[in-house]
Amino acid sequence: MTRWRLTIEYDGGPFMGWQRQEHGPSVQQALEEALARMTGELPAVHGAGRTDAGVHALAMSAHVEIEKNLTEHRLREGVNALVRPQPISVLAAEHAPDDWHARFSCVGRRYLYRILNRRAPPALDRGRVWHVAMPLDAQAMAEGAAMLVGRHDFTTFRSAHCQSDSPVKTLDRLDVRREGDEILIEAAARSFLHHQVRSMVGCLALVGRGQWKPEDIRAALEARDRSALGFNAPPQGLYFVEAIYP
Amino acid sequence: MTRWRLTIEYDGGPFMGWQRQEHGPSVQQALEEALARMTGELPAVHGAGRTDAGVHALAMSAHVEIEKNLTEHRLREGVNALVRPQPISVLAAEHAPDDWHARFSCVGRRYLYRILNRRAPPALDRGRVWHVAMPLDAQAMAEGAAMLVGRHDFTTFRSAHCQSDSPVKTLDRLDVRREGDEILIEAAARSFLHHQVRSMVGCLALVGRGQWKPEDIRAALEARDRSALGFNAPPQGLYFVEAIYP
Repeated sequence: MTRWRLTIEYDGGPFMGWQRQEHGPSVQQALEEALARMTGELPAVHGAGRTDAGVHALAMSAHVEIEKNLTEHRLREGVNALVRPQPISVLAAEHAPDDWHARFSCVGRRYLYRILNRRAPPALDRGRVWHVAMPLDAQAMAEGAAMLVGRHDFTTFRSAHCQSDSPVKTLDRLDVRREGDEILIEAAARSFLHHQVRSMVGCLALVGRGQWKPEDIRAALEARDRSALGFNAPPQGLYFVEAIYP
Repeated sequence: MTRWRLTIEYDGGPFMGWQRQEHGPSVQQALEEALARMTGELPAVHGAGRTDAGVHALAMSAHVEIEKNLTEHRLREGVNALVRPQPISVLAAEHAPDDWHARFSCVGRRYLYRILNRRAPPALDRGRVWHVAMPLDAQAMAEGAAMLVGRHDFTTFRSAHCQSDSPVKTLDRLDVRREGDEILIEAAARSFLHHQVRSMVGCLALVGRGQWKPEDIRAALEARDRSALGFNAPPQGLYFVEAIYP
């Protein structure tokens, strides 16, 4: 039995999310079915994070145990051939120690959120960005974002379906910058609550439009109350960038 | 009658190209049909360049004459609402002088070609890049590209269907650089021959793989013979970046 680490890029658009679901296609299921066809086994793929429907990944990490003897090359190329035409690509397949766990060994996660901030809707990046037609003040958003960095009770920014034991998380980074017509928001933490990035971005967009002041972000955080929340930014602007291991 | 200048982004994937065709959808036709529905007129849209099937545009320029009184806002928003769900977006609509012609007033055109150079196929950028799995030497490609800059007879890099009067063109810029897994090729000239960028990129890829030496680019150019050509790079990696006016 070999434990493998996989690094996976995917377009979240056609999927119900990373995790296997009763009611629709998932990235996990697509990978497990490809691996089953390759090996004749029924391997379970464990990801570093569970992305929601429509959320993309530039480099999701996962592990899987396989009995069949495979080279790194054969595993990567085989899965990529079999998952087609679904928009999933195994970037790397590497041997991992037997106690290496994609989720529990992970010590950091990075996300990117892309807002297209111009009047005209996206043609090339449709399904890849959140289109906000009203002008956003990226500087005010950055000021609001700074108030969320650090160790806090993030109850305000947590989904009702969140399964985390505690709402207390340490947000290491939440940077906002404008690049041309795009506003890019980069978030880093050991782990995130369910919907945390999208709800933080939703509130920052209210700040960007001038509906909230940057200080209102602090007030929403301190309220520790989901009803203090603005709204969740939509999934298609969100990218799981990478999982970090010791 | 008002002459308008339009700036248009599009995903070339679903189209037979910019230009109206008998046998399939085109960007020009989609725009003309939207404008006809808005105005009750039959306006002809003239582009700065004619992109091939599958080629994208970040900012194509075009002009159109319309009798109906419209604001810039109304024209842009109206076309964008009517072209949906086709991946076309009017970024700007501005009044233009009566003698301004998108094609004949244009004094410069810029293209970008994106090669994804890694083993794994693209998941997020499928249809947006040329995937080359074998490692490419960007430095050697840049050396080969430098031999094409300047005023030359580009017969070697010209399609059999090219309608240009002369094969002599001045290539102002052909820059090759690597950014992570991508090789980006930027080309600028007053005008290009049909398939010129794609055939130059195809030859540069042969250099990048080591099948050609950089000097073989010069030999191909000097041969002034289409049979000296390597091959055309595929359309989905090519972007019309912008048209330049005095």
